Amino acid sequence: MNTFGRIFRFTSFGESHGAAIGGVIDGMPAGISIDTLLIERELHRRATGENIYSSSRKEQDNVEILSGVFDGLTLGTPIGFIIHNNDVRSDDYKELEHLFRPSHADDTYFHKYGVRDWRGGGRASARETAVRVVVGAFAKMLLQQHGVTVTAKVAEVGGIAIKTDCTAASMPHTAGGNGVAVKTTDGTPHHTADSNGVAVNTTDGTPHHTADSNGVVANTAADMLLQEVRATGDSIGGIVECTVLGVPRGLGEPLYDKLTSRLAAAMMSINATRSFEIGQGLRATTMRGSEHNDKWNADGTTQNNYCGGVRGGISTGENIVMRVGFKPIPSIPKTQTMLSDKGELVEHSIHGRHDVTCVFRAVPIVEAMAAVCLADFILLLK
Amino acid sequence: MNTFGRIFRFTSFGESHGAAIGGVIDGMPAGISIDTLLIERELHRRATGENIYSSSRKEQDNVEILSGVFDGLTLGTPIGFIIHNNDVRSDDYKELEHLFRPSHADDTYFHKYGVRDWRGGGRASARETAVRVVVGAFAKMLLQQHGVTVTAKVAEVGGIAIKTDCTAASMPHTAGGNGVAVKTTDGTPHHTADSNGVAVNTTDGTPHHTADSNGVVANTAADMLLQEVRATGDSIGGIVECTVLGVPRGLGEPLYDKLTSRLAAAMMSINATRSFEIGQGLRATTMRGSEHNDKWNADGTTQNNYCGGVRGGISTGENIVMRVGFKPIPSIPKTQTMLSDKGELVEHSIHGRHDVTCVFRAVPIVEAMAAVCLADFILLLK
Amino acid sequence: MNTFGRIFRFTSFGESHGAAIGGVIDGMPAGISIDTLLIERELHRRATGENIYSSSRKEQDNVEILSGVFDGLTLGTPIGFIIHNNDVRSDDYKELEHLFRPSHADDTYFHKYGVRDWRGGGRASARETAVRVVVGAFAKMLLQQHGVTVTAKVAEVGGIAIKTDCTAASMPHTAGGNGVAVKTTDGTPHHTADSNGVAVNTTDGTPHHTADSNGVVANTAADMLLQEVRATGDSIGGIVECTVLGVPRGLGEPLYDKLTSRLAAAMMSINATRSFEIGQGLRATTMRGSEHNDKWNADGTTQNNYCGGVRGGISTGENIVMRVGFKPIPSIPKTQTMLSDKGELVEHSIHGRHDVTCVFRAVPIVEAMAAVCLADFILLLK
Amino acid sequence: MNTFGRIFRFTSFGESHGAAIGGVIDGMPAGISIDTLLIERELHRRATGENIYSSSRKEQDNVEILSGVFDGLTLGTPIGFIIHNNDVRSDDYKELEHLFRPSHADDTYFHKYGVRDWRGGGRASARETAVRVVVGAFAKMLLQQHGVTVTAKVAEVGGIAIKTDCTAASMPHTAGGNGVAVKTTDGTPHHTADSNGVAVNTTDGTPHHTADSNGVVANTAADMLLQEVRATGDSIGGIVECTVLGVPRGLGEPLYDKLTSRLAAAMMSINATRSFEIGQGLRATTMRGSEHNDKWNADGTTQNNYCGGVRGGISTGENIVMRVGFKPIPSIPKTQTMLSDKGELVEHSIHGRHDVTCVFRAVPIVEAMAAVCLADFILLLK
Repeated sequence: MNTFGRIFRFTSFGESHGAAIGGVIDGMPAGISIDTLLIERELHRRATGENIYSSSRKEQDNVEILSGVFDGLTLGTPIGFIIHNNDVRSDDYKELEHLFRPSHADDTYFHKYGVRDWRGGGRASARETAVRVVVGAFAKMLLQQHGVTVTAKVAEVGGIAIKTDCTAASMPHTAGGNGVAVKTTDGTPHHTADSNGVAVNTTDGTPHHTADSNGVVANTAADMLLQEVRATGDSIGGIVECTVLGVPRGLGEPLYDKLTSRLAAAMMSINATRSFEIGQGLRATTMRGSEHNDKWNADGTTQNNYCGGVRGGISTGENIVMRVGFKPIPSIPKTQTMLSDKGELVEHSIHGRHDVTCVFRAVPIVEAMAAVCLADFILLLK
Repeated sequence: MNTFGRIFRFTSFGESHGAAIGGVIDGMPAGISIDTLLIERELHRRATGENIYSSSRKEQDNVEILSGVFDGLTLGTPIGFIIHNNDVRSDDYKELEHLFRPSHADDTYFHKYGVRDWRGGGRASARETAVRVVVGAFAKMLLQQHGVTVTAKVAEVGGIAIKTDCTAASMPHTAGGNGVAVKTTDGTPHHTADSNGVAVNTTDGTPHHTADSNGVVANTAADMLLQEVRATGDSIGGIVECTVLGVPRGLGEPLYDKLTSRLAAAMMSINATRSFEIGQGLRATTMRGSEHNDKWNADGTTQNNYCGGVRGGISTGENIVMRVGFKPIPSIPKTQTMLSDKGELVEHSIHGRHDVTCVFRAVPIVEAMAAVCLADFILLLK
Repeated sequence: MNTFGRIFRFTSFGESHGAAIGGVIDGMPAGISIDTLLIERELHRRATGENIYSSSRKEQDNVEILSGVFDGLTLGTPIGFIIHNNDVRSDDYKELEHLFRPSHADDTYFHKYGVRDWRGGGRASARETAVRVVVGAFAKMLLQQHGVTVTAKVAEVGGIAIKTDCTAASMPHTAGGNGVAVKTTDGTPHHTADSNGVAVNTTDGTPHHTADSNGVVANTAADMLLQEVRATGDSIGGIVECTVLGVPRGLGEPLYDKLTSRLAAAMMSINATRSFEIGQGLRATTMRGSEHNDKWNADGTTQNNYCGGVRGGISTGENIVMRVGFKPIPSIPKTQTMLSDKGELVEHSIHGRHDVTCVFRAVPIVEAMAAVCLADFILLLK
Repeated sequence: MNTFGRIFRFTSFGESHGAAIGGVIDGMPAGISIDTLLIERELHRRATGENIYSSSRKEQDNVEILSGVFDGLTLGTPIGFIIHNNDVRSDDYKELEHLFRPSHADDTYFHKYGVRDWRGGGRASARETAVRVVVGAFAKMLLQQHGVTVTAKVAEVGGIAIKTDCTAASMPHTAGGNGVAVKTTDGTPHHTADSNGVAVNTTDGTPHHTADSNGVVANTAADMLLQEVRATGDSIGGIVECTVLGVPRGLGEPLYDKLTSRLAAAMMSINATRSFEIGQGLRATTMRGSEHNDKWNADGTTQNNYCGGVRGGISTGENIVMRVGFKPIPSIPKTQTMLSDKGELVEHSIHGRHDVTCVFRAVPIVEAMAAVCLADFILLLK
């Protein structure tokens, strides 16, 4: 099942070190002007090497759009595109041909299919997320026509909450001055009591995003943590928070294609995701009804949007707010014990180029999957 | 979209106070012996009134199987069934005809469809989950043939972790003495630092489940909390943990129908769910790669099953472990401010019969949805 | 796969002699007034015993609508309904428990599923088409709001073309005086050169349909043929022609969900169908481009509508015209050779109540399936 | 909807004169050896210029397989491929930018989408069928492992029945000497009474296919007809008959995904198709039950296979036999009246390169779609 979505849907293909990755977008309405700059910008945000905590693999990520567009407008026909895999160093992986890395999909692919492309993780590699980001860019073009904006940021790294007052200027995808300031719902990090938890607040109100469109924060506790993790040849998990603004009422098809169901499925299909929360998420499990029941405003909005923009699986018209948790990247420089396909335990150090944490690169991917979901449900509205 | 699943799939219908609710199970293999006792037992576990924290509505929940079964065996044709709605007191809801309760789906259904059945929550009512439980029972019959067992329990109420040493005897669905004791992975509650967090341990090792098949715990901090919540006319959230045993390798269809994606979609389609976690879940976001990367055993299993039985969206063969978070039930006796369909804010006390928390009743529902997912993926295996 | 459709979709269940048959309609828009008389009328048109060439089984066909409707309006939620099986004489079939009738689905169901409900054909019985007709009535309610009318008639029986000048008055489903006269495209029967082919023309211009809403023709060559077939304990095939009027442009989703693809799938899912033709159908295979290429009118319509209202899989806005061919009903009174499940050849006369031809009863079924397809595609239009 | 199939499924993209056409095959099992020669051979059979009655456009049809294959074996991951469009002469079409050809999809695409790629028919062009043929080749590789062979031939051109005694040697896709001779069921053409109908029989018993793998017949009445049609700047329709051998019992998922339903949908999705018949097809509509009811053999096969290998939507295990009718290609050299997008009627001669009839090129396309259907249903069998 390499297809996602119902009306606005895409199909992807491609292994990390194969000839190319690519996809087909089906259901994109006709007559929409193609914003190629947006596609490039989104890919750049995702690209390896965007910040110092990411892998040094340099993919050009040149997208070739092969169909579905004519004279700069979408045709309503499927949009096929490919991205060639250029900076491939498969030799880095040759030594992994018969080894299963811990917490990786090496063994599960092998056992499911009997064969596997061991080069760079094959189909299980996060390389594939470049396709999602391209599709997400098209979804954003569609959403733009409906006044819907999708924005995400790193909310936590290794349990350290990052408070970011995003201003319009810092949001890379709201070109044209229609940027809307995104605030975290209540400003208080969910996990302040966490043993790792050092609350991070900027003292001068300047947006953290200006230096790096994916939200890399300079000179903070998180930064110190990341430097230490890198220095020790390790990796670390984190949380991406995604907010959708300008959402029309009525998105979501209960009961089994609720907006929450689809978003959860979308997010859990991204590599390394381990949790999904909507609205107050896990915090809601500790709340009382009298507290979580949000106070109505007379216009039908609520005072706190605790539900995160979805009630009964249907969008309320308020911002959709969700959080996606990522585990630490399993490929670390440290020597680890591998399992061979003959059942031997082998000490081995992984070569190749890997990220300290995936959450910065995950930001545009989370946005892309959210955009795809929203685009699809908007097309399902009459 | 009132259909869930791909090969083993079901379609449901029914409003809370309509003539009946029901469903159609499609894709159930032929020749399987029907276990009607199991269906009844599962419905009983879910039923209103099972414990003192649940609503006093007494549904008989008599299932009429209308097709797909002949001489006690499944035919391979669709299994249609209905459950009549008997103990309906719609007058309790008459006063809500023009009012939207806070944190309910009243307004979103109204705005999406223009009309709504205001009696008892209509389609958005948890009444519908009885259908899921019936379908889940059929899924369990199928899973039983593959040696797969699905079991869930209440893991937390209002942030209070409940350590339950389930023994085989207490697990209602493992008839035949093949029950396997389920242990929480590491025994330490995830949220000990929570302000509500009183760690609950039984001192004498007796299973909590013996008194109540859904895991109602007597004489504990959780119990004290629940009594207090009820006394104050309030409700409280919680977490259900679900474990699947005997899982074959290779379940899940990457990339966009990963086992984690489907399970998340399934769980987030249940009323009042706010979070989904697989394996270490949120905790994984605070871990380092060297910690979360699980140590291999030579047989291909791991020492801690931190990944919760899924890597790269494909089952590893180890137990699947997931956690589903529920918000507090929004219908509480306390007087609250409602929004009328004319935009007025109205003080109102909800009548009707409601639960203090949904998590006890949610246990068999979570199991049912997990069983449906597993059954479907097993049928997709060659 | 007992679900049909994408947005307007239905799921059915039920064996011929089980407790009930029924279905779930999903995707019916909210706020549509229910026309229960239409449902009854459509079922009556299909009912056994409607004319002298049909089986004498008397099903009451009382539909119980269990959900999705409130105060006479659709809710946008799934519409569940059942029809109990009343006039069941399973003993008629007891003798067939171990016999496979020729040209029936007895053996294929048995081999596919290993078990079968041998009573009355089980799931393979045309009894199930009552569900289609109910769903079709709902589809027609939706289509009515879009000005779309579906009408069918018997075009041929046993190769004898029936020329019917339908007038508005004779069309049972165009109540309210908005009936549009339907003419066969060119008036000439397609198969006049057929060895059975006696061209049938009424001499006085009175509509054939007045006596019988399904198009039973009195005192014609076809009637004589049918009487002879019945007298000899035999059955005969025929063709139903279906015309859809008031079709908007743009229905159909190329490439693999073309209007023609979906209609063909819908029709070929009906019992006993053997052929599907759109527009000139088989006749088009003998035509030259200069002949089949239709002359444009300046308003974008054509002079002959040879394409039958579909070009490139997309509706042109002209009438959709299709023909569905039915084989002779295999259950005939004549003694035939059966195959036992032990591989014995057994001479046997089938008891039970059977039709001389299915085409008269098939008329509302063909309409129903066409209506379901059209409703679905209309909901897919933006 | 540019995806076809359920388990074995493909998605296609591409306009006739765009950069490339291509597709993604999803669900191809892992570990199957790729037969690139088969892909080339199938494309060659379809290629323009294969015989004198086909267009002179010379596409190289070089397929680039971009993913899903590693070391010559399928990976179980999606197989992406593209075919660049090389011999594009869009200027031939410039004059059609504002004209709608009669019986073409020019106007329906324009009205549905508001924009269209007028170069070479854009998405509606038969160019896309090259993708189907590539997918079909993969499906055939899968079917080969199950002993299933798909073979088609031209059965009629312009109403002239062609009796072809295919021998194994002439069937291009039955390598390895396992070819089974295919005979038309009864040898008698269905339409002998047709005004065009000259029964064609080879007098010397030599297979027609030897000269041309798509069944071009030399020196026959059909050949004379085709020469005359070409000489007059016209085109002509015809019928392709497809036979599937080695079919396992039990394929097809009643009720709404019957084998007949899916095959019909597949065939009607091919350009220019107007009719679909299974088994005796239209002839069955003129038969009596006592005649059409096939005599059992004691092994469960029948004497005549009148049902064409499907009963109740499920494969019987006998050969599947179906017929697909094609209209005459609408693009003809003759001057015709076009409709401009301003509503003017304009006399115009189409330039470009077109076929006299599509049926010869349709042979491998019909095979491909049949193979895709069969492959999918085989994967659905447990």
